[in-house]
Amino acid sequence: MTATAPETAAMRRALELALLGPRAGVNPQVGCVLLAPDGRVLAEGWHHGAGTPHAEVDALSHLAESADARGATAVVTLEPCNHHGRTGPCSQALIDAGVSRVLYAVPDPGEASAGGGERMRAAGLDVESGLLRDEAEEAIRPWLTAMRLRRPFVTVKWASSLDGRAAAADGSSRWITGPAARDDVHRRRSEHDAIVVGTGTVLADDPALTARSARGLLEHQPVPVVIGTRPVPPGAAVRRHPHPLRVHATHDLGAVLASLFDDGVRSVFVEGGPTLASAFLRAGLADEIVAYVAPTLLGGPVVALGDLGVPTIDRQRRLRLTSVDLLGDDLRLVARPRASDTDPHLVDTTTTTTTKEL
Amino acid sequence: MTATAPETAAMRRALELALLGPRAGVNPQVGCVLLAPDGRVLAEGWHHGAGTPHAEVDALSHLAESADARGATAVVTLEPCNHHGRTGPCSQALIDAGVSRVLYAVPDPGEASAGGGERMRAAGLDVESGLLRDEAEEAIRPWLTAMRLRRPFVTVKWASSLDGRAAAADGSSRWITGPAARDDVHRRRSEHDAIVVGTGTVLADDPALTARSARGLLEHQPVPVVIGTRPVPPGAAVRRHPHPLRVHATHDLGAVLASLFDDGVRSVFVEGGPTLASAFLRAGLADEIVAYVAPTLLGGPVVALGDLGVPTIDRQRRLRLTSVDLLGDDLRLVARPRASDTDPHLVDTTTTTTTKEL
Repeated sequence: MTATAPETAAMRRALELALLGPRAGVNPQVGCVLLAPDGRVLAEGWHHGAGTPHAEVDALSHLAESADARGATAVVTLEPCNHHGRTGPCSQALIDAGVSRVLYAVPDPGEASAGGGERMRAAGLDVESGLLRDEAEEAIRPWLTAMRLRRPFVTVKWASSLDGRAAAADGSSRWITGPAARDDVHRRRSEHDAIVVGTGTVLADDPALTARSARGLLEHQPVPVVIGTRPVPPGAAVRRHPHPLRVHATHDLGAVLASLFDDGVRSVFVEGGPTLASAFLRAGLADEIVAYVAPTLLGGPVVALGDLGVPTIDRQRRLRLTSVDLLGDDLRLVARPRASDTDPHLVDTTTTTTTKEL
Repeated sequence: MTATAPETAAMRRALELALLGPRAGVNPQVGCVLLAPDGRVLAEGWHHGAGTPHAEVDALSHLAESADARGATAVVTLEPCNHHGRTGPCSQALIDAGVSRVLYAVPDPGEASAGGGERMRAAGLDVESGLLRDEAEEAIRPWLTAMRLRRPFVTVKWASSLDGRAAAADGSSRWITGPAARDDVHRRRSEHDAIVVGTGTVLADDPALTARSARGLLEHQPVPVVIGTRPVPPGAAVRRHPHPLRVHATHDLGAVLASLFDDGVRSVFVEGGPTLASAFLRAGLADEIVAYVAPTLLGGPVVALGDLGVPTIDRQRRLRLTSVDLLGDDLRLVARPRASDTDPHLVDTTTTTTTKEL
């Protein structure tokens, strides 16, 4: 992997551009920068969401009238795609435009879309993979995880007191965390494709499962998903969600995730209650954990997480903290499971081949 | 309260000096700066611990041979004492030295020692109280709390997983937190007069209850105190502590604290287990909370805190976080109860009303 300084700078810029696109959705965030042979930036582009041009095509469309891409270098965060979806394959678009060199950060993990690099190489282009790969992997980790595991990326969220309780002894919990933490939850809801709760939470709290701010509904609303065998009451608030309610009357979380993935859901935000959150964690089906810890003590029986299948300390489920922030009076901890603690047999919910990727 | 800029600067310096003295012990940390009428610093002093001169006398002893304190201003963090202990009253020492003005930050809350300000006023000195009082109160909060409540300042410490567990299902807990957090615990032990555990912890963990570093025992060792009615085994590690073990075979925490206070203990570090820590919290007998939270999940039945007597959310025990720090991989949260949550009738532990607190 060799890259010039302008190419590396262009990849950093492409990563910034990628994040301008929507985080939720069936397609990844992708950015693209076109460089002239002398290193000047010719055009930039990014993917604005499913149904709109991919980043490479977006960048090509932004070339000045007087410029063209012949002999240019395309710097892209993700391997240009190789399939005819709602848009043509980007690898062919780059070939057709006369681009002579392509650098991408991350290979496309998609079954249908991969192979763009090979197509371009076969067409005589100079193609390199892996520039700033770690940063790019981190930037689109949810989508990559989903595509590799063939199930949605799972964020498990809970809010608790400092002593790990989700409610007082009588079940009352409004409010443990403050407004800043609750706003953060809504923002994160809007960054996921679906929001998942158990029937117990529907019956106890009657949540709307919308993503809201003080000004009303946020632009992107996650699909509401309820898991469990108890019926959702006809008058439940979740039935008035902008998206139709999905009910999965099962305890087979792997099957639920596979079904959601097949329907284009790439990320889910699991909001509990404790039984469901614990089930995801116990099954090794949590890719990210977001815990809001309020500076308060509750004691009593209502723990935020229940049995996690940890009989002895050697089996503890170690996490790696990725951030700790104070939101108002509350702490927000974001963490992910340490790879060594993941039970390999629990990871793959659909096929038998992907476990080695972890 | 009027103070010149040199006087305010001198009080800040006196607060720094105070903290050079030992934090544990029957006496408070006190600092003193003597100023010439033109604002020059004549001498500094601080209290080095019980049995040594008080800060004012220490400062007077540091005057240059050519200087004297006639017409000087004494800036002291705590009201100069008025009693004959192992040293004479400091208020008289300042009068005898010819000091003409005295500023102190905090009035002496001691029953026997208060009144120094009045004595000096009666002798014709210009005496003012309250300069940087908030900072000074904060600096010696444990000692002030002890003197005002006539019981030791109580720090309740626990270590837990992110989900609030003190151990895995089988009781195993070595280790949840890492070496940096454990070192911090030992340092804090050495800053308290006594370390308190329940008999359950002695029987389960056989702790030494010493304050240690990698180089061995720290200089100051807290007195080991065990509370509970089960006997401490003859071979228990705590019996080999440098200080004789104190056993209080009772569940009356108020009585234990009163007894410790009478014996000169001004601060205790409550290390659990969960039953004892919860009892202190439930009784409103925690002045400071130090929680080490490891980025790990355990689930299961062994919660770090048990019943706190919080039946419903309106009765939650809100804390005010005073610091959040990362120690190695672990978080350390220091907090104190919000004043509004303290039941005033629970505060005084010296009367006969204390048993209902449990």
